[in-house]
Amino acid sequence: MSSTVKIVRLYFKEGDKTQDHHNLMKELFHLLHDEHKVRGASVFRGVAGFGAHGVVQADDLLRLNVHLPLVLEVFDEPEIIARIMPRLRELVPAKHIISWEAQLAEE
Amino acid sequence: MSSTVKIVRLYFKEGDKTQDHHNLMKELFHLLHDEHKVRGASVFRGVAGFGAHGVVQADDLLRLNVHLPLVLEVFDEPEIIARIMPRLRELVPAKHIISWEAQLAEE
Amino acid sequence: MSSTVKIVRLYFKEGDKTQDHHNLMKELFHLLHDEHKVRGASVFRGVAGFGAHGVVQADDLLRLNVHLPLVLEVFDEPEIIARIMPRLRELVPAKHIISWEAQLAEE
Repeated sequence: MSSTVKIVRLYFKEGDKTQDHHNLMKELFHLLHDEHKVRGASVFRGVAGFGAHGVVQADDLLRLNVHLPLVLEVFDEPEIIARIMPRLRELVPAKHIISWEAQLAEE
Repeated sequence: MSSTVKIVRLYFKEGDKTQDHHNLMKELFHLLHDEHKVRGASVFRGVAGFGAHGVVQADDLLRLNVHLPLVLEVFDEPEIIARIMPRLRELVPAKHIISWEAQLAEE
Repeated sequence: MSSTVKIVRLYFKEGDKTQDHHNLMKELFHLLHDEHKVRGASVFRGVAGFGAHGVVQADDLLRLNVHLPLVLEVFDEPEIIARIMPRLRELVPAKHIISWEAQLAEE
């Protein structure tokens, strides 16, 4: 049977830290994988982007100095996502977290 | 006029094979491009992720030993997607296939 | 409070030009960032894909000769997206622009 899941996308940047100076992506993985046992998550790196801190492009600049955009994508049952959401918002500003419903394929 | 399409995302990993040991991504392309004449599809590679087989990160490990996450994205008319879906499910577990509706821009 | 945003994804290729021969991605950034003051956008590069111009794969071919798929993703308030959409359609064919609604996380 087909069932509804919730997809969450979190937008951040390479090099982003948590308030206590840990690597943000690792903290998000820790939260999702170790604490909440989410089944899966993927992080994709953009080749260009812009946000509050200006425009970046992978090809224009010396790669080491550029913090490219990252997006972490996770989907799971809506109840599980609802439980994690407040924790995600402690790590990532609310305006960088979007979610929507999707259908899982029928078994 | 704006029209409704269905977006499908399939989650798998580099190195994944079909049951008869072919490269999964090539088989998916064969199915979508050659057999079903889908207009377009894109595959994106993650830089990190976790799933049933543990955590991977592009930067932490010798690249050759890591199977990074892949996502294949395709969108088309809902009827065309409905016709392809059973075939996709033969290649990718149902829990790794999600879909939702979107609007095509007006001509 | 949670609020509704509209996500837009534009599909194009590396090397794509505008009708007056400018780099398409730079023109899209100019439009979104400089003219319309959209808060953020990200561009992701695929590792494989197919469309009207055949199949491409990053690993199979001499990288310099291949135009890999790009997707530009932007989200903002539906009214802002509605205002930009006609301009996006001057740069990218309507059939390569899809959008859907999502929820911003609650503050």
